[in-house]
Formats: sequence, C-alpha cells, structure tokens
Amino acid sequence: MSEQLVNRICSELSTLVLVDPHTHINPHSPASKTLADILGYHYYTELAHSAGMPKSQIEEPGLDPKTKVGRLVEGLVHLDNTIQVSWLVELCRKFFGFSDDRITSSNWESLYDRAAAKMAEPDWEDQCLEMSGIERVFLTNDFDDPLTGFDTSRYIPCLRTDDLVFHFTNPTVRARLARATGIEPTNPARLKDAIGKLFEHFSRHGVKACAISLPPEFTPVRPSSPSDMNRLFHAAFIQSAPDSTDSGAVASRRSGQEFIFWTIAEFCAEFKLPFDLMIGVNRRVYPDGVFQGQDLFDQRVSLIQYKDLFNAFPQVTFPVSVLSHASNQELVSYSWIFPNVVTNAHWWYSNIPAYITLDTKARLQAVPRNKQIGYYSDMYKLEFAWPKFNMYRQCLSRVLAQDFVIERGWNEDDALSLGQQVLRGNVETIFNV
Amino acid sequence: MSEQLVNRICSELSTLVLVDPHTHINPHSPASKTLADILGYHYYTELAHSAGMPKSQIEEPGLDPKTKVGRLVEGLVHLDNTIQVSWLVELCRKFFGFSDDRITSSNWESLYDRAAAKMAEPDWEDQCLEMSGIERVFLTNDFDDPLTGFDTSRYIPCLRTDDLVFHFTNPTVRARLARATGIEPTNPARLKDAIGKLFEHFSRHGVKACAISLPPEFTPVRPSSPSDMNRLFHAAFIQSAPDSTDSGAVASRRSGQEFIFWTIAEFCAEFKLPFDLMIGVNRRVYPDGVFQGQDLFDQRVSLIQYKDLFNAFPQVTFPVSVLSHASNQELVSYSWIFPNVVTNAHWWYSNIPAYITLDTKARLQAVPRNKQIGYYSDMYKLEFAWPKFNMYRQCLSRVLAQDFVIERGWNEDDALSLGQQVLRGNVETIFNV
Amino acid sequence: MSEQLVNRICSELSTLVLVDPHTHINPHSPASKTLADILGYHYYTELAHSAGMPKSQIEEPGLDPKTKVGRLVEGLVHLDNTIQVSWLVELCRKFFGFSDDRITSSNWESLYDRAAAKMAEPDWEDQCLEMSGIERVFLTNDFDDPLTGFDTSRYIPCLRTDDLVFHFTNPTVRARLARATGIEPTNPARLKDAIGKLFEHFSRHGVKACAISLPPEFTPVRPSSPSDMNRLFHAAFIQSAPDSTDSGAVASRRSGQEFIFWTIAEFCAEFKLPFDLMIGVNRRVYPDGVFQGQDLFDQRVSLIQYKDLFNAFPQVTFPVSVLSHASNQELVSYSWIFPNVVTNAHWWYSNIPAYITLDTKARLQAVPRNKQIGYYSDMYKLEFAWPKFNMYRQCLSRVLAQDFVIERGWNEDDALSLGQQVLRGNVETIFNV
Repeated sequence: MSEQLVNRICSELSTLVLVDPHTHINPHSPASKTLADILGYHYYTELAHSAGMPKSQIEEPGLDPKTKVGRLVEGLVHLDNTIQVSWLVELCRKFFGFSDDRITSSNWESLYDRAAAKMAEPDWEDQCLEMSGIERVFLTNDFDDPLTGFDTSRYIPCLRTDDLVFHFTNPTVRARLARATGIEPTNPARLKDAIGKLFEHFSRHGVKACAISLPPEFTPVRPSSPSDMNRLFHAAFIQSAPDSTDSGAVASRRSGQEFIFWTIAEFCAEFKLPFDLMIGVNRRVYPDGVFQGQDLFDQRVSLIQYKDLFNAFPQVTFPVSVLSHASNQELVSYSWIFPNVVTNAHWWYSNIPAYITLDTKARLQAVPRNKQIGYYSDMYKLEFAWPKFNMYRQCLSRVLAQDFVIERGWNEDDALSLGQQVLRGNVETIFNV
Repeated sequence: MSEQLVNRICSELSTLVLVDPHTHINPHSPASKTLADILGYHYYTELAHSAGMPKSQIEEPGLDPKTKVGRLVEGLVHLDNTIQVSWLVELCRKFFGFSDDRITSSNWESLYDRAAAKMAEPDWEDQCLEMSGIERVFLTNDFDDPLTGFDTSRYIPCLRTDDLVFHFTNPTVRARLARATGIEPTNPARLKDAIGKLFEHFSRHGVKACAISLPPEFTPVRPSSPSDMNRLFHAAFIQSAPDSTDSGAVASRRSGQEFIFWTIAEFCAEFKLPFDLMIGVNRRVYPDGVFQGQDLFDQRVSLIQYKDLFNAFPQVTFPVSVLSHASNQELVSYSWIFPNVVTNAHWWYSNIPAYITLDTKARLQAVPRNKQIGYYSDMYKLEFAWPKFNMYRQCLSRVLAQDFVIERGWNEDDALSLGQQVLRGNVETIFNV
Repeated sequence: MSEQLVNRICSELSTLVLVDPHTHINPHSPASKTLADILGYHYYTELAHSAGMPKSQIEEPGLDPKTKVGRLVEGLVHLDNTIQVSWLVELCRKFFGFSDDRITSSNWESLYDRAAAKMAEPDWEDQCLEMSGIERVFLTNDFDDPLTGFDTSRYIPCLRTDDLVFHFTNPTVRARLARATGIEPTNPARLKDAIGKLFEHFSRHGVKACAISLPPEFTPVRPSSPSDMNRLFHAAFIQSAPDSTDSGAVASRRSGQEFIFWTIAEFCAEFKLPFDLMIGVNRRVYPDGVFQGQDLFDQRVSLIQYKDLFNAFPQVTFPVSVLSHASNQELVSYSWIFPNVVTNAHWWYSNIPAYITLDTKARLQAVPRNKQIGYYSDMYKLEFAWPKFNMYRQCLSRVLAQDFVIERGWNEDDALSLGQQVLRGNVETIFNV
C-alpha cells in the first residue's frame, strides 16, 4: 500500500475538529496538572504492575506525584512495545516538546518539569483542546451529579446508569437516589418516578446520551407484570441481603436489574435520548489489581441477548460498544439489520490497532455509513484525546486507502468524506449535537 | 503487494467458466425483468430500512416497480460504502452500460429504462449467463417441487430440507409432504418412507445435493430406539400444540427434529448425495424487518455439536457453511481432520471482503486443496453471479498473490491452478457434476 | 510493505540461537532415522487421511518405512497448499539437498535414500540442532519418567500432568503413580504426598516447567474442605466405575480432577516452577481418525474459567497457550492485567500464518514485552524445529516491519531487539534457563 496515500488521507482527516462522544473527563478539572495525572492513567499503572511492579509501590499512600512518575518510568522499559505507551510518548512530543523516542530514567525529570510548567499555564485546558482538534466532550455523569459549575455546551452531560442497575442493592446507592430526587425508591412505581426525576434533571442540563456498561451474561427481557414486579422488587431489594447467593435471591435480583434497565430504556424513549450500551465487561476479575486495572471479559456473549430490547424500543437509538473483538461481526450484522442499532467506536481491550483495523474494515464494508460512530477517546484527562484519536485516524486512513481507494477504485475525496462522516458527522446526527 | 500481480491472477481466474453450487434461482424466471427485481434483493431493502427508510415505504402493497426503485435509490446515499451496493453498481456497469460511480436520483431513471430494455431481450437469460461466465446453477428446491418445466442440466436440483426438519409441526408442511408422496407421515416409519419417496423423486431429476440451514443451538444426536422414537414423535407432532413452550413439548419436538434430520442424512448416504449444512442462523430476530431482512445469529456455536453426525456418516460428504466468522477456524480444523467435512464458501454475514479474505487465508493454509469449495453466489436473480463471484475472485487473487507467490515463492501458474481448483474443480468432484 | 525490510529483519533474527520451550522430543531418540519418521508426523497422516487416503493404508500393521513414505507421498498432491507440507519441503531442502518445489511420486525415492544416508551419520542429532540454531529443548515427560540416560542440560525435563488430572480414574495410572513414588494414592492426603514426590524427583533432574492440556469446559475452582474432599475423592476414584455417566459420579470426578489440578499448582508454587496451561482441546472427537489425528476443539471457552486459579497463585507464572484463535484476545487481555499470566506461542490449530500473524500483532501491541514467549515447535523429531521456527520468524518479521518500523517509525535495531526478546530472552527469564 502506498504510504503516501495513507499519510495524505490521515493529514486531511487531522484537520477536522471533533466532538468526543464518550469520555470520563471531570469538567471541574479536565486537564492534567502533572505527569502523574497522565502516568496515573490505569493503562500505565496496570501494565507496569502486570510487567512486574508491585501494586504497593504504585499505590503507596501519600506518594508525591514526582516520585510516582519516577517509579512508573522504571516500568516503561517493559512496555515500550505497547500502543498505550506510544500514546504517552506521542502526547509528550505534541504538548511538552519531548523529542526522544522513549521516556527513560535519564530523561523523565526534565520532561516532568517542562510538562508541569506547561500545564500550569492558566489557559492550558483551552490550549490542549485547541491543539487536539476537539471542541466538545461528552462526560460520564453519576446519576446524582448536580451538573452545575461547568460549561455544558463544551462538556456535554451523559447520564451513566451502572449504579442504578447493578448496585441498587447497595443502600448507599438508594440513599443517593432518594437524596437526588426526594423520592424513597421502595417499590417499582416509586423507583420509576425517581428515575423520571433524574431524566428531567439531566434534560434541563442538556444531556445528550444515557449510558451503561453491561456484564457478558446480562440478558434484559421485558419486565413481568406490575404485581409480579412488586413481589420480585421486594424480594430483590428489601427482603434479601444485598450479596445473598441464594438462587431465589439471585433470580429476583436479576429481575430487579432488568426492571431498572428497562425503565431507563423507557425514559430514553420518552426523552429522545440515545442509550449507549457498552457490552461485555466482567468487573473485579483480578481484585488485587491496581485501581481500575481489575476488570476483564468473557468472549462468550451475543447480541442475541438484546433481541427483546432492540425490538421493544424502535424509537431509541442504541450506540453499541463491544469489549470483545469476537463480538464485532455481530455488531456489524445487528447494525446492518436493526435501524436502531449503531456501531460505537473501539472499546478498551478492543482499542488497539490490530482490532480497530479489522473491525473498521468490516463496519465500512457492511454497515450503512450514517450508522457508524468512528471513535471516542474514553479519556480521563484531556491530553489523551489527541494520541488516541490519532491512532484511530491512522487505522481509518489505512482502511480507506486500501479497501476503498486501491481495491474499489474510489477517488480520494470520496474516501475522505466517508472518513469525515464516521469521525464527526454521525456524532452530530446520532446524538443531536 | 504488487497490484499488477493481483490483477494478473484475477483476470486469469475470470476466464474460467463456473458452476454456481448454491443459489435461490427460480428456474422458471431466472433473470430479472426490471431494476426492481435487482433492488428488491433483501440486501438493498434491509440496508435501506436499517439506514432509516420505513418498511411501509419499501413494502407498500401494489407499488409499481419503477416507483419502488425510485424510493430505494434515495436510500442508496447512506449505503454507497457497502460492498452490497458495489455489487449493484458493478452489475449495472457490466450489463446495462452504466458509467457513473453511484446510482443517484438524477441518473437512475435512464438506467432503469436501459436495463428494462436489455432485460426484455428474449435471450437475456443466456446473455447474462454467458457474460457472467456461469454455465450451471444449483437451485434450492422445496421438498415438494415437481422439478419439471426447466432444463435440469443447466439448473441443477438441490433438495432443501428446512421445512421438513424445522416446520414439521406445521400442518401445512405435513399436508404438503402427504400430497407429494402419497404417504400420511403419522409416525416415524411412515415419515421415513415419505422422505425416501422425496429422495427418489429428486434423484430421478438429477439432484446433486441436499441442503439445510440450522440454528446455532441445534445439536443433532443419533435418534432414540424406534419405540422411544414412536413415543417422542407422538408427543412432538401429534399431541402438542405446534408452538407449545412446555418444556416436555419442547424436548420431544427437538427429538423429533433430530430424528427427521438424521433420517435425511441416512438417505444422503443411500443416494450418495452431499449434505450441505449451513450452520448458525437465528430466524426472525427482528420480526418487524423487511422481507428476508429479519434473521441474525449468535456467534456462540461450535462444530463440536456435529461430532456425532460426522462420525456416524463417513460416507456422506458435508459441505459446511458457517454464518459466523468466529466459526471459520473450527471449520478449517474440522475439515483438516474429518475426511467428510469440506469448507463451503462464504455465507451471508460472512460474505464481505474483510471476512472472506481472512477465512480464505486460513483455509488455503490448512485444508487439503481438494476439500474447499471456494464460492457460491446464493443469488435470487442471475445478474448477481457476476459481481459476487468477482468480489470473491478479487479476495482470492489477493491471498494467492500475497501468501503463495510473494511469501511462499510459488510461481504464478501454480497459484492460479490452486485458485481454479477451489473455484471450479472441486465443485465438479464434490458434487459429481 | 517492503519485502526487503521483512527479509532483512528475518535473516537477522535467524542468526539467534534458540531454546525451544515446548516439544515432544524423545531424548533417547531425538532425530529421525528415515523419512517415515518425518512423514509419519500426525500432520501428514491426518491430512492425507482427510484428503481421502484410508486409515488402513496409512496405519497398516508391519508397514515398512519406505512403503509408508511412498504411500503418503501420493497423498501430498492434495496437500501442497498447506503450510504443514511447506515445512516438509523446506526441511528436505535445508537438510537433505532437495531442490524441487514438491515431493512427488517421481522424486521421492532418491530423496528418501539421501535423507536416510544423512540421518545415519553418527552426529546427525548434533548437526541438525546446529543447523537449526537450537541449543536446548524442553521435553514433555510422563510423570513417572525416570529422567535418566540423557543430557538434561540439552534436553530439559518438563513434568506433563494430563494423566494425573484427567486419567486418574484409570487404574493403570494409579498403579504407575504408586510405583513411581512408593505411595498408594488412596485418599487426598496420600495423593498429595505422591505428587510431592514427583516434584522432588523432577526437581532433582532440572525440571523447568510443569505442563498440562485442558478441555474447553474445564473450570478449576479452589478445592472443598479436606473432609468434603475425602468424601468426593472416595466417590470419584474408589466408589464409581471410571466411566460412569451418573451425574453424581461425574460431579465428584470433576471435583477430584480439580483437586489434583489445584494440588499440582500448589507444588508449582512450592518448587517455583512455571505451569504451562494449554487450554481448549477436546480429545477423540474423531475416534476413527489416524493416531494423534482425532482431537479438535470448541471455540466456546473463556479464560474467565481460570480466574480463581490466577488469583490464588500470584507467585506461579502461567504461560498460557490457547487452541482457538478466538481466545487470543482474552489471552492478550489477561496477560495485560494479571502479572502471572504470559502468552505462550501459537498452538496446533492456531499454528498457521493466518492466525500467528493476527495473534502476534495484538500481543506485540498490548502485552508487556517481557511477558511474551514467541514460539515453541511442539515437535516430535528435531528436524521440525527449523521450518516451524522459520514460519514463525517470517510472521514475526512481517509484523515488526509493518507495525513497528513502518507504522510507528521505530528504527530497525529496536524492532529487532523486540523480536529477539520474544524469541529467546523471555524463554530464559520466564523458565529460568
């Protein structure tokens, strides 16, 4: 393949200013303050731990940022092959004038200081967004987030609902819901009212999506009749201990989860919100892992589990992310058949060039072009948008060059326009931003 | 990779006249009459619907062909990236003098008229086959097809058995079987006799294969003893309501299905017919979808489910198609071990270049060359053989060029001869045509 | 991609002398004596059988080596596309002065004789290792192997434990254990003592790994309390017939297997041995197949099944091989998160370039570089190390060239050094050789 062609497409795509449709940015502190915020990203701590660094060394209480960075830099020697470390090096080159190929024990200190100085500039947040070509950023908001004190036209609220669905047995979660809505969620009807209040609150603050991550075995079905639901709700959330492993308790808890999930989907329909499904994560598989470095997956999952949901809510758009590369063909096929299913980016363990490339090829070959959200950064700090989107742009450019320009004889402008649509246009139309 | 090399191999392969070993051609009306027959192919209606066009607009009763085409053309704007639309454009260029890159609201009418004129030529069927390099075409015949009124040397009968196995609870199906054979299938012995009659009938008309599509959970086992089978048959087909969800009824229905399936395999052995297994489709996953645009799949399927069958019938060849790309490695491995399992083309949701290419690489690297059926078109109208086989030839040529000529140092003639064998030679030997 | 670049990297990697970390070499007869030893490798017998040669012809009792080779050569005509036959041709060219592209009925006899002469040279074993660039070779030793009579610095013992875990119901296995250790394994405590004796014996002879192959459904959990275990052990191994299919017998047998497996893991911890897990094989799927050509797999398997094990033994390194390509992303992800999980080569049905290439890409992009064992040959005779490692080196070189040098801008020396680490360096550090 002609590298010139790839590079030409990629640099053209790089001029497009983007909306990032899924991140974990804290809008009250969106950018990093030191390299510790950057090297503290779970990708680096978990990989350093995996490569041999004890968790105690990484997560020592009271560790000052510079010492922490110094320690993690020692771990990088085993990680320079990873794409995640290439993000790190690329952002340091882009933003902090770093000019080496690797961050090592002999060059990190000056980088640390230069980065700290840069990040201390009062407009660093604006500079970083500007240099990254990002103008709006979706958030991941707790259901009881007041959504005040930040610019919701730049940082777009997204209602994250994992706690409601999967931790509703937890009294703290129920108390948070009662506090946020003024309604004690002691039965299905009251819970529905409370969730309605959340949607009203988020709606007033410009919410553009609802989102949830789901374990591989989750199979939502239409809830039971109201009277059965009252009984199951009582059994699941009032009567049983939250962690009971009794099979009856487990079954009613599952029914309760499905009821809450289904209720949220109903409100997505009412409030005309897309419902982001992030399918396939098992939480706390490695409980002794570092913070956020404990989750994994089971590839034995199928979108057939969502058949009832997709059929019951034709008016709701479901941007679907799958954790396992093995699920991509199902995602392609379900998006090709169901009008309300759209492909959503490349998530977590599938977010490496080997899988992005294969998944992008299949999507561009078989899913309508208006139903593909190319990418989101999933970042916690603004500095990561640039290298992550850049990785995606390179994979996308390579597929456009090979599959469309070379193999199908498209002209470059048409290929470029397809790339622009999945990078930006569809984010606007699908999320109505 | 040198594009010259790929193109050289591909144009050489294009000169080979082919037998298409699986289609849905109606031999009484094999070619299209207007572009509505072509754009009415479920790929275009389902993709247009998926991209946003209401089903009511596509399937409006009494819609005249030209209006229908006009509507579907509006949907193409969201679909031009798909490989399915590239088939459409390529066939219009090949057969109807179309010279643009896209079919749009401003150029479709003249194309429609030109195509209609061409298709109205009395020898269009012959012309189309000739231009497509196809000389014989396998059909998909209902079990009660009289198989008369067409040239069975050009259109080769294939006994399709889905109705018998999976819809035998349906009284209409049983009535059709009784009418076709003169035997009321009221117990296992009579059903076996009736199926034997079907095989005799098909055999007299030159049948070359038996075929069935199978849901992901199907796991055929050797049937129970005759007396148990009598009881199960009665429970499955006489006693229970056809759609009973009672677990006993479901279990005996499953035993009944397995019995019918196994009986068909026995007759394949007796009549020396290959038994095409098309594994992995879930029917009516999206029941509100357009005609033929409702089926999907569950990737959690394994060929281990067919272990008993493959062992029980060493004398029957099973050309196996898998719907899920995830199943391809199993197909490669089972074909590498079982003498009676052969790889059969690239089916439906796996029939896009991204998956064809990967699947072809693995097959050519690990399955004996005499056990690979490269491709079938699965077409409903003759015009699709050319663009679909052409897509396959391009993928195949690319794999032959890269994996064999460049990486393994084969000369081009040897690579070409491997391509010719999977494209044509094996169809002849495996189906005995 | 520049073929020159690939070739430059590959020839540089070829100069590296290697340790082969998993083989089935018999140290008392490591090299072949005739081509029958080479063509008798199950890859050739099973592929010839799959392509149409009756098992009786291949495994005829008393068949002399030359006749056997003559027969198998006839089968090669259907197999020349396979990568396995390319190993054969390449080793004949490398070692026996063969200069044709294919082994045929007209050239095999002179090759047979030339090869026999070469193999009859008294130092053939040394020559072969020297020409292959292999200096040490891991074995696969039965648990009761005396480990004497060979040079354990060249042929490194590895304790294979399939018999203990999966065939302990077999009285012969229990008798072998009693004989090897002097302990009758009639209850859990005595069995544990006996296994401890085996580890001591292997340890005295320089064992460097323990290994086991595991069926897809195996899900080891921490054993029950000692008193429960006594009861289960009795039910599994004393009370029930070895092949009982009674569900209680099956369940206690499974508990027994898990207990033995867990006990072995405990001794790996005590003796500081890596525990090679080879996950996903179903044995005897095609019982009428040729010797060693009967096993297949079920892709529906997940590393989540090993969650308890990986958490319970943080001090044990688990080099994991997966049989199914579908499992590779899980292997990448589990190795990226768990410090004690490392990727181990490309096993059996995944050991073809199509899958090696994709799997290598993902591993090199996301697993710490010190946690990847690039390759083992799995060979039964020394002549196969060279062509198998060569296949891997070519795939690896292609990935290093494309993903690292071209796409990520690495210099060739850094790419080479990454290749050297996965080829050799990590074998030394992980297995402590």
